[in-house]
Amino acid sequence: MISNFYNYLENLQNTITSKIEKIDGKSSFLEDLWDHHDSGGGRTRVISNGNIFEKGGVNISSISGTLPKIMQSQLKTKNKNFSACGLSIVFHPLNPMIPTVHFNIRYFEMIDLLGNKCDQWFGGGIDLSPYYIFENDVILFHKNCKEICDKYGENLYIEYKTKCDKYFWNSHRNEARGVGGLFFDYLKDTPEKSLKEWNSFVKELGDNFLKIYLPIVNKRKEMPFTKYEKMWQEIRRGRYAEFNLIHDKGTLFGIKTKGRIESIMMSLPPTVRWQYNFFPNLGSKEEKLISILQKPKNWIK
Amino acid sequence: MISNFYNYLENLQNTITSKIEKIDGKSSFLEDLWDHHDSGGGRTRVISNGNIFEKGGVNISSISGTLPKIMQSQLKTKNKNFSACGLSIVFHPLNPMIPTVHFNIRYFEMIDLLGNKCDQWFGGGIDLSPYYIFENDVILFHKNCKEICDKYGENLYIEYKTKCDKYFWNSHRNEARGVGGLFFDYLKDTPEKSLKEWNSFVKELGDNFLKIYLPIVNKRKEMPFTKYEKMWQEIRRGRYAEFNLIHDKGTLFGIKTKGRIESIMMSLPPTVRWQYNFFPNLGSKEEKLISILQKPKNWIK
Repeated sequence: MISNFYNYLENLQNTITSKIEKIDGKSSFLEDLWDHHDSGGGRTRVISNGNIFEKGGVNISSISGTLPKIMQSQLKTKNKNFSACGLSIVFHPLNPMIPTVHFNIRYFEMIDLLGNKCDQWFGGGIDLSPYYIFENDVILFHKNCKEICDKYGENLYIEYKTKCDKYFWNSHRNEARGVGGLFFDYLKDTPEKSLKEWNSFVKELGDNFLKIYLPIVNKRKEMPFTKYEKMWQEIRRGRYAEFNLIHDKGTLFGIKTKGRIESIMMSLPPTVRWQYNFFPNLGSKEEKLISILQKPKNWIK
Repeated sequence: MISNFYNYLENLQNTITSKIEKIDGKSSFLEDLWDHHDSGGGRTRVISNGNIFEKGGVNISSISGTLPKIMQSQLKTKNKNFSACGLSIVFHPLNPMIPTVHFNIRYFEMIDLLGNKCDQWFGGGIDLSPYYIFENDVILFHKNCKEICDKYGENLYIEYKTKCDKYFWNSHRNEARGVGGLFFDYLKDTPEKSLKEWNSFVKELGDNFLKIYLPIVNKRKEMPFTKYEKMWQEIRRGRYAEFNLIHDKGTLFGIKTKGRIESIMMSLPPTVRWQYNFFPNLGSKEEKLISILQKPKNWIK
């Protein structure tokens, strides 16, 4: 299963990076191959200073190792050994009218003391962090997410949408990181749904990632923006960095398992601003974003 | 004890902010008074976009509350109630030739179930994060720290210097946040040293903070710098933000005890850059900084 899935991720990475380069038209991805200190490794691809993408990464990795104690207790397991592979994407656009996007799919296997697979599951998600709200973009994004979920179960969308709002919650700021999307984990073999079906589900998300994100990019990429709007984007990127460094379990997992630090930190925005106690004017477009982030809403009626 | 010490902190904050405004010559501090949701509050003063200081904060607070469980187990106590007050300073200079400085002194009291003080101590520290190494500045900084420590015990400097190197260690990067200084905690009443003496020690540090930092500012403030050097400063500020958001116990304590978030986050740099896998040229001044941070050294022979 793991090598099949990794093979899929390699192809998906190729497809996504080549399409993104074509759309960006200026920059191309730098590739770094790396070995994990335990066993396995990854292929990191990062784009910088593009026409459209100020910074972005499309990373895959496949590692085997031992879980740090804190992760063992989080997973409530006495087994230590695991194998895992996954793909992570973050795009930070130059133009603040285009939202930042994050996408991840992963497969995880626990190995018992005899060296046998004893548990396995898929996880992942997709979520959008706009700097300015274009409601139709957000609704379309959620509709596209829902359409895929609906093929696999009628309650999946609302379940994963709710999990996403909960997960990407910047609790120390009392606001969401963005306008949500999907978040799921521990998709295991059950009488209702086989691991094979979950495998299809995450692959379908992977295959549709660009179809979901790029229409928004194309609609917004030519929009003009002011210095103030760029500054606002950089302030909001500060909240994005705070989430990733304080709360994100993927970042923590990477650090705790001694992953390649530059591949983990590729998710951080290119330029960030922390301005003391900045709050946008009442009634402004910037304040509209804040009010939406403070109370995650259902985008599909 | 706590009200006496807070009174001292209020005066110290006044002295420091007025002297910093004078030296900066352009910007002045904004003041925010705030109440803690439990009991107590603080006085936050932040300077922005100055001639010398791009961002800086001098904050005091005095709060009473209940410890979150995680902090109880860190402090190995079954008591929950505490009172604490402290002063925190961070200055992020505009000119990358001037180091960022951090200073903190604090007093902490545990309260037992009957409402009586059952444990009390001082803590704090001072440390320097340069972007370019001027060895004489660093040596002078450490000598000044040592001079104060020596008055209170012949091994204090080396003990607190070692603790500082250990505490401000960005373990996920395998490098120090800066060139160190002093870090101490749990300075309690003992047969060798009374709480009153520790009180004098932290006050002496407070009284000398500007005498330690400003000579460095004055020596470097007129130095010219290039765009590249400013970019390097912003990249290094990224490491500073990573430390504060991933590792710093003060930030975590503030978040866990639901402190005022803007006062906690004032320590973050004004502008930050995360550039994928950036490494300075071999033999450059930038690389010299990295090599020093990777192996904390003894600045005083």
